[in-house]
Amino acid sequence: MIVYFNGKYIEENDVKISPFDRGFQYADGVYEVLRTYNKKYFMINEHIERLKYSLTEIKIDFFDYYDKLFGIFDSLIRKNNYKDDEVTVYLQVTRGRAYPRTHQFPEKNTEPTVIITAAPVISKRELNKNGIKIILEKDIRWERCDIKSISLLPNVLINQKAKENGAHEAVWIKHGFLTEGTHTNFFGIKKGKVYSYPLSNNILPGITRMVISGLCSKLNIEFLNEGIKQNELDNFDEFFLTGTTTEVMPVTVIGNNKIGGGKPGEITTEIQSAFYDLTSGN
Amino acid sequence: MIVYFNGKYIEENDVKISPFDRGFQYADGVYEVLRTYNKKYFMINEHIERLKYSLTEIKIDFFDYYDKLFGIFDSLIRKNNYKDDEVTVYLQVTRGRAYPRTHQFPEKNTEPTVIITAAPVISKRELNKNGIKIILEKDIRWERCDIKSISLLPNVLINQKAKENGAHEAVWIKHGFLTEGTHTNFFGIKKGKVYSYPLSNNILPGITRMVISGLCSKLNIEFLNEGIKQNELDNFDEFFLTGTTTEVMPVTVIGNNKIGGGKPGEITTEIQSAFYDLTSGN
Repeated sequence: MIVYFNGKYIEENDVKISPFDRGFQYADGVYEVLRTYNKKYFMINEHIERLKYSLTEIKIDFFDYYDKLFGIFDSLIRKNNYKDDEVTVYLQVTRGRAYPRTHQFPEKNTEPTVIITAAPVISKRELNKNGIKIILEKDIRWERCDIKSISLLPNVLINQKAKENGAHEAVWIKHGFLTEGTHTNFFGIKKGKVYSYPLSNNILPGITRMVISGLCSKLNIEFLNEGIKQNELDNFDEFFLTGTTTEVMPVTVIGNNKIGGGKPGEITTEIQSAFYDLTSGN
Repeated sequence: MIVYFNGKYIEENDVKISPFDRGFQYADGVYEVLRTYNKKYFMINEHIERLKYSLTEIKIDFFDYYDKLFGIFDSLIRKNNYKDDEVTVYLQVTRGRAYPRTHQFPEKNTEPTVIITAAPVISKRELNKNGIKIILEKDIRWERCDIKSISLLPNVLINQKAKENGAHEAVWIKHGFLTEGTHTNFFGIKKGKVYSYPLSNNILPGITRMVISGLCSKLNIEFLNEGIKQNELDNFDEFFLTGTTTEVMPVTVIGNNKIGGGKPGEITTEIQSAFYDLTSGN
């Protein structure tokens, strides 16, 4: 696989991330994942804006790069012969290599490390059709979940726990509210209205979440930026998750409880269908 | 610099951490820092026990390695001609390279990535003599600070903030208590007694903290595993920090407030002196 690494297109095996890279030693970096539909990057400006936000919040200067990104994505697709595929792009920026190791930022002239990879989309459409099981877990993450940082160890541990419990995702509970999944946003539907935890430091501002909010408006479905309390779950009729590769994913089981008889809900299916229409260009 | 990387001793420039290393993409790893005094590893068994704890908690199997570590440390010192220096050893273990990127653990046969480096100790003894300024910051970290993970972005950001405020360290405040620093443990002295936040998921079980606890016993200074409340700081006479490279560091300024006239406290100095005696073999 050809990847982009600090200005060069090289084989993945030839990439040399330094053991003193701040991303490797300190999780001192951020990332983005975006994808194509119909061979076009979906919501790319929004992804780049979020990347800018993440980098600004952790004070990595990436100023020279934004205009180059489209060209780099195109080159990766071409060099890897992915032209006939729908593609996922992964982009990671760290504060670069610095020695000796010390918590504070390195010298100003330290170059960020930039790695960009592309791969054919791995479809989850079969899961999207049938829905998935989730588990609920206390939110043990840091207080800046609005930054798309690579500081993901809690997400790893709890996503693994979900898998070991026969589930596909875990949703965090913070102060009694279901906030979001380990790599998805979370939604509930009550009496025809869609609820999702408000944008804040407790969740990632999901791009697909933003799309869904807009779609709901078109579908005349009320969308409320309001969290769902764990002790009020029984009042909700449907649940779903969203994400760039997760798309619109019905939740049919929470813990040991089937939702809606274990089948995707009606409004969830309507939103999912509208999402497919939007992304297929219909 | 010769480093140890996955079974080989190679130049740092030749190390190839994969962009798909779990440590680089997910902060999915842990580390240790230890040092020599009089050319002997200090508290090495305690460091290795803590490494085992960290790895066990995040479920990385490192079973084959523990017996090899002493030999690797020795080899690094020899190969780098550090025989006449006091040396710091940095050791990092991640869950290894895995592709495609997905939060859950990779296949069981994925080899952990192991990087070990050594370098001459950078002395902080001048600071240890005069003391340092710290700032206080709300603890924004995750809930498993007892694991020495590389998920250190919050520590980086706040340590940098300390630097920008003319301080050398920031101490976290959690639920009203001063818990620990971004890379140190924290102590206060009131009426001759030493207080330090109890071992729990909120702090790293510092090896030097353990040594200080034992030294206090020898010095007939009472050591209490009790946190210090922010609103009771005025009742304390002295403060200090500890860490493997920080040793016993007097705190002479907190925020804008001088402590003890801006000079290291009497009991702090007594403990520091006992620590120097212990580590110099007196």
